[in-house]
This record gives sequence, structure tokens and C-alpha cells, in this order.
Amino acid sequence: MTKNIAILGASGYTGAELVRLISTHPDLRIAALTGERKAGQPMASVFPFLRHLDLPDLCRIDEVDFAKIDLAFCALPHATSQAVIKALPGDLRVVDLSADFRLRDPAAYEKWYGQHHAAPELQAEAVYGLTEFYRAQISGARLVAGTGCNAATGQYILRPLIEAGCIDLDRIIMDLKCGVSGAGRALKENLLHAELSEGTAAYAVGGTHRHLGEFDQEFSAIAGREVRIQFTPHLLPMNRGILATAWLDGDADRIHNVLQARYADEPFVKVLPFGTTPSTHDVRGSNFVHIGIVGDRIPGRALVVAVLDNLCKGSSGQAVQNANLMLGLPETTGLMGAPVFP
Amino acid sequence: MTKNIAILGASGYTGAELVRLISTHPDLRIAALTGERKAGQPMASVFPFLRHLDLPDLCRIDEVDFAKIDLAFCALPHATSQAVIKALPGDLRVVDLSADFRLRDPAAYEKWYGQHHAAPELQAEAVYGLTEFYRAQISGARLVAGTGCNAATGQYILRPLIEAGCIDLDRIIMDLKCGVSGAGRALKENLLHAELSEGTAAYAVGGTHRHLGEFDQEFSAIAGREVRIQFTPHLLPMNRGILATAWLDGDADRIHNVLQARYADEPFVKVLPFGTTPSTHDVRGSNFVHIGIVGDRIPGRALVVAVLDNLCKGSSGQAVQNANLMLGLPETTGLMGAPVFP
Amino acid sequence: MTKNIAILGASGYTGAELVRLISTHPDLRIAALTGERKAGQPMASVFPFLRHLDLPDLCRIDEVDFAKIDLAFCALPHATSQAVIKALPGDLRVVDLSADFRLRDPAAYEKWYGQHHAAPELQAEAVYGLTEFYRAQISGARLVAGTGCNAATGQYILRPLIEAGCIDLDRIIMDLKCGVSGAGRALKENLLHAELSEGTAAYAVGGTHRHLGEFDQEFSAIAGREVRIQFTPHLLPMNRGILATAWLDGDADRIHNVLQARYADEPFVKVLPFGTTPSTHDVRGSNFVHIGIVGDRIPGRALVVAVLDNLCKGSSGQAVQNANLMLGLPETTGLMGAPVFP
Amino acid sequence: MTKNIAILGASGYTGAELVRLISTHPDLRIAALTGERKAGQPMASVFPFLRHLDLPDLCRIDEVDFAKIDLAFCALPHATSQAVIKALPGDLRVVDLSADFRLRDPAAYEKWYGQHHAAPELQAEAVYGLTEFYRAQISGARLVAGTGCNAATGQYILRPLIEAGCIDLDRIIMDLKCGVSGAGRALKENLLHAELSEGTAAYAVGGTHRHLGEFDQEFSAIAGREVRIQFTPHLLPMNRGILATAWLDGDADRIHNVLQARYADEPFVKVLPFGTTPSTHDVRGSNFVHIGIVGDRIPGRALVVAVLDNLCKGSSGQAVQNANLMLGLPETTGLMGAPVFP
Repeated sequence: MTKNIAILGASGYTGAELVRLISTHPDLRIAALTGERKAGQPMASVFPFLRHLDLPDLCRIDEVDFAKIDLAFCALPHATSQAVIKALPGDLRVVDLSADFRLRDPAAYEKWYGQHHAAPELQAEAVYGLTEFYRAQISGARLVAGTGCNAATGQYILRPLIEAGCIDLDRIIMDLKCGVSGAGRALKENLLHAELSEGTAAYAVGGTHRHLGEFDQEFSAIAGREVRIQFTPHLLPMNRGILATAWLDGDADRIHNVLQARYADEPFVKVLPFGTTPSTHDVRGSNFVHIGIVGDRIPGRALVVAVLDNLCKGSSGQAVQNANLMLGLPETTGLMGAPVFP
Repeated sequence: MTKNIAILGASGYTGAELVRLISTHPDLRIAALTGERKAGQPMASVFPFLRHLDLPDLCRIDEVDFAKIDLAFCALPHATSQAVIKALPGDLRVVDLSADFRLRDPAAYEKWYGQHHAAPELQAEAVYGLTEFYRAQISGARLVAGTGCNAATGQYILRPLIEAGCIDLDRIIMDLKCGVSGAGRALKENLLHAELSEGTAAYAVGGTHRHLGEFDQEFSAIAGREVRIQFTPHLLPMNRGILATAWLDGDADRIHNVLQARYADEPFVKVLPFGTTPSTHDVRGSNFVHIGIVGDRIPGRALVVAVLDNLCKGSSGQAVQNANLMLGLPETTGLMGAPVFP
Repeated sequence: MTKNIAILGASGYTGAELVRLISTHPDLRIAALTGERKAGQPMASVFPFLRHLDLPDLCRIDEVDFAKIDLAFCALPHATSQAVIKALPGDLRVVDLSADFRLRDPAAYEKWYGQHHAAPELQAEAVYGLTEFYRAQISGARLVAGTGCNAATGQYILRPLIEAGCIDLDRIIMDLKCGVSGAGRALKENLLHAELSEGTAAYAVGGTHRHLGEFDQEFSAIAGREVRIQFTPHLLPMNRGILATAWLDGDADRIHNVLQARYADEPFVKVLPFGTTPSTHDVRGSNFVHIGIVGDRIPGRALVVAVLDNLCKGSSGQAVQNANLMLGLPETTGLMGAPVFP
Repeated sequence: MTKNIAILGASGYTGAELVRLISTHPDLRIAALTGERKAGQPMASVFPFLRHLDLPDLCRIDEVDFAKIDLAFCALPHATSQAVIKALPGDLRVVDLSADFRLRDPAAYEKWYGQHHAAPELQAEAVYGLTEFYRAQISGARLVAGTGCNAATGQYILRPLIEAGCIDLDRIIMDLKCGVSGAGRALKENLLHAELSEGTAAYAVGGTHRHLGEFDQEFSAIAGREVRIQFTPHLLPMNRGILATAWLDGDADRIHNVLQARYADEPFVKVLPFGTTPSTHDVRGSNFVHIGIVGDRIPGRALVVAVLDNLCKGSSGQAVQNANLMLGLPETTGLMGAPVFP
């Protein structure tokens, strides 16, 4: 039976990606799209690539009749999201794509996001949305907190390895490369084509990137002790894609075995043959994760590389995957589209 | 009922795009993939972005059991295609993506492609694959000749206008901009990233591009007189997309009316509001065509701009659309995927 | 003897390009850099690529001691420029890079820029800055108005042809392709990497682009009658470069002869062998113009393609070239740097 | 007094970059350009961006009169270079840009390049071309071996730190990002625009990249013990630029102090304020190196990022810098061109 969907904050890239995915999803129907500043506009004027679809115009959130909505995706900016979700009907299923409910500890939220949380009771209720590791809880959840896109990429590498105890927890370095759509449609000088194309730079250096809050929370919980990784992202001249390079102390063969076993039955996570590494080109526009493992020339050191599409598997695709579970649909419904190459 | 499909020449971009589209097509199943030089290799080693699919390995054409094939796509190079198709079972449905059967006249083929045609009898049988204009013939055809990607783009603009008699046939200029995937996976210096990115140039200048053979054939047939347009393509630093700018003598309002009326019921062709023009960004990865019409400041002169994705609507998407018709399936099956933006 | 230079409006791309060029100019010394909103900042914080230079910090215009300045480049936005230049010392040599003094007729300015001109007396005094065609006047000028970058490209093709009377003045079509730096450092959605890369679109369609004001003024003056060309620019996913494709009624051989003769002694304008066309890749970062001429398959129709770097020859390089003349220096001083390829 | 220069192997990117740099060098004159396969062709047909220069046509090496040459740049492929240089006059000054003379130990050469060295006596004679660290030897050298472009980038970070003893030599990780021109003009599938743009991947993973041979040789010599770093490069969708991210065990403040002191008087190496990191955009087309140092949130761990232009400072610019020294010219002559941005 078709489920009615609302997308709150549909004028950004993750909102548009949700519409893209849902447009060919057999069981979901877009019943409402909101955008406060662009209320009244047709979606096709905000995103002409959706011109072929018959979509409701953008409206304000207070114009949505939530009684008719089965599930709402919330693709609003951080901080706005918590206020909006707090005001929604208490029994409405919600998948939030912001950072607002990723951290369970109000103090951690305040540390990384620099402000008090307006809905700490919802923080406690929210289930962390990394589907492959929270599947059961997500199926029964009312509120799911989508992960950070960088945070998702890193966890696909590290969670099974920390759990298996096969790497040195005090020697985890993650050098990450990401495309620009992860920064959203914000008008910033460094996101202009003239400033970004044909070059690269690091950003949020030295352990200051907010997704470290998620790493700290999740890895420490798995390990049963505090785990602090080193992490620096680099902005690349490409639109979609994240490539995480993990430099690890551990046996590469064992690492490969652990990851291969862990993901053998996962429909979206593919572990490559030992010694080969993946490319972001090969997951663009899709919900797939590719992971490769290599041994270093120094014995006992390993390199693990993971790639995914930040807008899809790292955000909106993950959100649809979680929505499928919450609505009792097969998890892969609407998400098996092949990557777009070239 | 699921139809069994063979893709001959699956190691190029149009072959891979066919696999991408068919991978989520509910009624088609890939039964054979051929690649003479790469026979024996798994498709995932030639195109790692297809890693998640359960596909047959590449084989040689002579290894395919065509008795079990309902339809073959032929994505081979020009000239190779005619020899291969000539040797296939005479009752096998074939959609050819090469240039070999686009020109009905052997002399025209020789003029534009510089060699004798090896299967002139098939030239006569083949139906030209511009779906929106040859729908009935394609439905009953055994052999359909996919159009050139540039030729398709230009015809979406000009066919209805020539038919309506609303433009000066001796004053048609088409300035075309195309992405690099149209040139295929060939190893040529000018297709290297270092040579192509961050710049542009014209090519096949002054009326020498082979797709003019298709324009001449089709436009002259519609007009009932010889029509010769001026046409120069430019290579752009982008992978997918064609933008055709037609500079026309005619009344812009009437042109808009004619195109709007012609495409009102077409599922894949969208005519924009008068005065606005489309972007290739908005059709990337999809089977859609967007067309915009503008009046020039000089009365009686008009500008029409059309965009499509060369690999999809300009080639493999068109091929699947035609295959759907030939197999009695709804025409849009498997082709309604939204464009990928950004 | 070294000349002291001020750059007013040094925080934009044309200002930075002036600094780049002057940094290796043997006879010019940067004595002042202004930027109202960024006054007090070191240039290296606004443009880190200039980090190696010993430059004055940005200041406000009213802080500059113009008594010590030999020539000022004015790289301010349109409309701001006329107010600023009006208030400068009346004997200060000025090269303006804005649109404010390109149009000699106040009515034309008002038509194309939508406002009254604040300094019509300076409009009359200003010399149009297309060096190769206004060399003598520029040498003696106090105020030179830099051309539009698109306008410059088009004029290198058309001025000699109109003067020679070898093309049909009522049949001039110019299809232009330009890189994004021409739009400046403005924060606009369509200039974001995610929106601009990997695609193209037309803009300012149908005869509405402001550089048409320059074309109309110049071409009509040369022809001694009103000349109105058709012109549509397209925005390309590249940072630097303009490629203008002119579709002309005229004899291609004669056109080639006229252009070759006209530019034979010009140090920066290179006419290619007949039948070949240029690439923007080959002028990137330089002050050179490359022009190619091709005959169409339709007799009497010709294609002329010209390329230049919009920031250099189309703007700041032209400005330095003009400044050299105004200061009695050899015209090519500091401008012979080879293009940067790849 | 003008020195006569020969460039052997002028049809590749480093050869063309040499021509670009020398074209505005006041004391060098290009007397011969060789290209075996393209002998007889004008340089402008191989590299149209050099069209404005008056250059000798390409010739074969055996056609060059070396008696009239003051210095030869050898930009030939690895292995070819050693055979060619061995056959040159024994007193001819040579700057080699290949890998052939970077490793002093024939066994090391054989290990990393998989073949016997044909001129081991020249290996012994050659001076390693990292100018800032071999200045005195280069000034008196007859044969200088240009460094690997990745190897140069890494050494600007690590040499002073190893020498100062301020980092853990067993915990050096270098995650490198490089543009595609470093791979040369080779026709390889993964270098095509369609395969490379809009994505990234690692290559030469796990300690297999040949530039490790240089790291091992140089770092072990400085440390007086064997030093083996971990190193993996990633190929980015950009043409020029290398960004090396070094993950180090050491005190970030001390590291900053050491690097700042070491490079205070170097004209081409700029150390940024503590806590900031550089971008490849800011060195494009130039001979500059920018280095930034950041402390990690984990005490005792530091991040150092260095950028340079692989074709210029990483190869041809370094070569000219060394040639200046060998010919008794001021070291910076012809190399102070500002980067090209945007």
C-alpha cells in the first residue's frame, strides 16, 4: 500500500535527492514538500531537473496536514531541525537528515555544535541511522537520525574492525576526500566553481570536524573504552563522492577477512578482492559502498579505503533505506539503481 | 514475461549504459554480454561500477546461443556492426546503436562514412530509431537503427518546425555543444583529462560532421525538397550532455506553439515556457529532452535550445525505448529514472 | 623609470589578475590596493595565491595619496566606477575595467544598464580600450574604458570584416561560450561548483546581453549604418576562456585573407591556417588571441572562431597593454607570458 | 650572456613546461628541441599553446649540434634517459627530469624500476636535484637528477623534521593527492576525461609507488638509520597540483618552528601561520611551495600539509632553478611568475 511522504526542507540538495529517489519508488508517494523561503513555488523552478514530475508546490511547514502523512523526511539545517521536529505530532514517523539527533549526549551535542539542544528528550529517543548496524532498532523506531556522510563512510570501515579487536585503537588515522555537494547549496566563496575546481585543500583540520562527535560516540561504545581517531577531510573538485583512506595498525589479511565476513550478506556494501581499492566514480548516484583493503610494505600496517556517494548512501539514500524499514517495506525498495558512469 | 537480452559490444560506454538501464528494468534480463577483446572477463573488471550486479561474463559473439535471445542490442563500432548483424539469425530482433543503418541510401552511407556498405539489403529494412517520429514502424520492426546522439538532439528541434513550414529552410544554423562520452572510450590525446578539461574547441567544422548525413536524409524527406543545414559541434569539458542551439528565421511564438503542441503528449520531451532555455545539468543520466524557445531582438529571428543526455536519450536510453516497443512493452518501462543533480 | 600604480577594487578577480601581471612587470610598481569592505586586510588573506609578494595592505580609496600615483586601474563594479572616477584628480591617468565608460552615448548606457550615467562628461572623454583598434588614441588618453570580455572577442573577428565589406551585415550570428570567472567572485547559486560543473546552458538569450551595446556602437560606427548582430552566450564548466563562433555570410577565403592581413603585425593576435580552429586551452592565462576561419559546405557561408582568456586579454591583460601605451612603455611589456597548458 | 639550451624530449608535458618557462627567461635561449617520433614537426603543431613563439622545429637527438649547447634538459621517459645521456658529450651540462639518476644505488634502482641501470657510473656522478637541500653541489654539478614530483613535495615537509629529530621516524604517514598531468601525455583509459573527472581513487597503494625509493634513500641518509615511511597517492580530477598530507608523531609547535626557521630565507618555500593549511589552487602554474602545520586534538600528533605544482616546482620549474645555478645565473631568474588563479 502506498505510503504518503512529506519532505520538510525540500529546497536543498538532500531534499532534491530524496525526491529523485522517491520518484521511482513503487510504494512511496510525495504528498507534501516544504521550503519556508520558497513557499508557493513549484519544485521545478527550484530544481528544473525535476521538471518531468507531477509534484506538489513547496509550502510552509504549518500548511502541511500531517494527519495524512505516514512518514516525514526532515532535510532542514542543523538546529532548525530540532525545533521543527519537536513541534510535529508525537506519533509521526520521522527520518531526520540533520545533525540534531545523531549525538545521544546533550553535552556532546553542545561541545560539537556550540549550543544547547532544544529537544534533549528526543535525543534520547532517536535511533542512529546507520542501517547496517542499527537495523532492528530502526525498524521499530519513530525517530531516526541520519548519520553524517563522512561519519557513515568512516564507520563502514572501522566498526567491524573495532568490534573484532583487530586494530590498535590508539593508532587510527582517517584521511578523507569529499565532493562539494556535501556542503549543500550554501553561497560561500570557497564553493564557487572558480575557487573550487582544479585544486584541493584540507579543511576542518586537526580534529575539529563535527563528524568526529559521531565517531567518538560510536567507536567508544563498541570498544567499551574511549576511542579518539585522527581525522582530516579534504575538499575535492567533484560534486558527489567521499573516499575515506584509513591508515591502521593491524594485520591486513585479518582486516580483509573481518570486513568480508561482516558485509557478505549486505545488499549495499561490497568488499573488493584483497589488494584492490575502490573509486568514487563507481558509486556515483547510487546507494552502494565499496571497500578495499591493502597491506602496507611495513608489516602490521594496513590501508582500508571506502567510497560512497555522500548525497545518496551518505544521506538521502540512507534515509530512504531507513524509511523502508520503518514502514515495513523491503529494505532495498527503490534503491537498487546502478551508479551513473561515466 | 521477462525477455532475454544480449548486448553485443558491452565493453564501451553505450554498452555499459544499456546494462545500467536494464539492471532496474522489470521485464528485461541480460542473458549475454559480448566483447571480443575482453572475452572471458567479468563485466565488473571492465566496469567496476556494475560490481553489484549478477551478470554473465563477457564472451565472444560466436559463443552466444541466439535461439534463447529475444532481442539483441548491438553497441559495436561503425562498420563492424553491419558485418555482425548480417550474420545474426534473420528473425532476431536487433536494435543497433552504430551508424551503420541510419542512412537508407548506400550512396549517402558511402559519402559520409567513406566505404561501401556490406549489407545494403538491411539498410532498406532498418527503421530509423527516433522513437517519437517512427513509433509505429519501430513497433513492428525487426531491425532498428539508433540515431546519432547529435542528430537526435537537432531533430527534436527541427522536425516539427520543418513539417509545420514555419522556418526558412535555407537559413538553419545549429551550433552544438557536447560532452566527451559521445566520443566513446577511445584512447585519443584530445580526450585526456589534461587536454580536455578547463577549455573548449570546435571540431568537425564547416559541415563535415557525419551526423549531417542523418539531418540531410530526414529533413529533406520531411520538406519534400533538399534541406542542408549549417552545423558545427563543440567539445565541452563535461562527460554527459548535448546542448543544441538552433538559430532560425521564423516567428518565435509560432515556433513555441508548434513545438509545444507536437510534444504535449510525449512522456520524455518537455517544452519550457516561452523565453526560457534549458541546461544539460537537468537531464543528466536520464531519458528526458528539454526544449526552450526565445525570440531574438531582431524580429523574425528565433533561438531554440534543446538538451539531452547523449549516452541515455541520445543512445542507450533511446535503444531501450525502442526495444520496449518492439517487445510489446509499455514504451516508458525502465526509463523514468529522474536525472542526477548535482 | 618605474611607475607607481594603484588598483582600485583589488579584491575581485580582475584586480587579482592585475596584481599577477604587474608582479613580473619590470616598469610598474604597485603602490596602493583598495577594497572598501576588506580595507585593512593583507592581500594574501583575500588571495592567498599572492602570498609570495610584498604588497601594500588593502585600504579605502580615500586613504590613497593619488599625488604619488602615475596610473590607476579601476576594477570596481559597474556604476560604482563612474562615481569613483569622477572624484579622482582630473589629471590622473585611469584605466577603467568596468562597463561605465564603454558606451559613448548616455542614452545607450541608460538603455543597456538601466540607469542614468553620473559622469556623462567623462563618457565623452573616455577612449574605448580595444588596443589594436584604438592604439593612437589610447596612447594619448587620460581615461581608457576597458572593453567587455565577450565584446572584445567578438570584435577581433568582426571589425576587420565589417570594415572590408566582405560579410552580410544583416546576417551576423555569434554563438559564444565563456568560462565562469567572467562572472566575477559573486555569490550566486548558478556559479557554485555543484551547479556549474559537468553541464552547460545559454544565458542572456535573444539579444539581451549588455555587451551588445558595445557591438552596436562599434560595428555601426565602422559600417556607417546601423548594424545589429544576433548574439547568445553560453556558460561553460571552465574557469577561464571565451570561444566565439561567428556564423557569417561571406567568402571564407576572403575572410581569411582580410583577417590575416589585418593581424599580421599584431603581437598578440594569431590567425591560424585556413580550415583550422582554435581552442581556449591554448590561450589560458595569456594575453593572446587565436582566430580560425573555415568555409561551410554551403558556398558563401563561413565560420570564424576566436578564443582569448577573459580575465587576461579580455580584461586585465588588455588593461596593462593600454597602461603601457599611456605611460610610454613598449606595448608588450610584462605581457609576453606563455599560456599555461595543461 | 645568453645561454643556449636544448630540450630533449620536448613533446611531453614537462618538455612543454620547460619551453613555457624559458620563453620569458631573460638569459636562456632555446636552440634545439627534440622529439624522435615527431621529428620535423613544428612545436606549434604538437603544442598549439606555444604558437606565438619562434621556436626551432622538433628534430632527432642525433641532429643536434651539442657543441653549441650550454645546457641540455632531458625530459625523456625513464630508461630512455640513461641511454641518451650516456651518449652525450661528457662535458655537457645536463638536467635530467626522468627517474634515471635519482637513486644513487644501482640495486635500489633495480628494485624500484625493475631493470639494470645502463649507466651506473653516471648514477654516482649525478647530484640529486632538490635545490633547497643540494644547492652547493648543484652549482658545481655537470649532471643533475630532477626529483620525482611527489618525492619533492614530501621532502619539503620531512627533511627538516628528520634532521631536527622532532618526529617519530617509525610513524610517518603521507597521504598524497595529485593532479593528472603528473602521469604525462600517455594514452591510458584511466586518464581519459570521462574516467577521471568527477571522482577519485588511490593508486600505487601499500608502499609500491616508485617515489618511495627516493624517500628511502634521502630520509635514511639524513637520519643515519633506515627510515621507511607509509605512502599512498590518490589521483584527483585536476590537471596540476600535488597536496601532501603528512600525519606525524611530534609536537606541532616545534614542527612549525623548525620548518619556519628552515625556509625563512628560501625564495620559493612559504610556511603559513600555525594552524592554517594551503591549497593547490594557490600555487598553480608557479614555482612556489606552501606548507601549513596544525596540531591534532590528540597531544603529540601533528598534521603538515604541503602543496606545489607538479609540472613546475615538481619538475620543470625545479629543472630551470637548477640550471640557473649550474650556469651561474641568479637562482630565481625566470621563475618568479605568480600563480594563475582562478
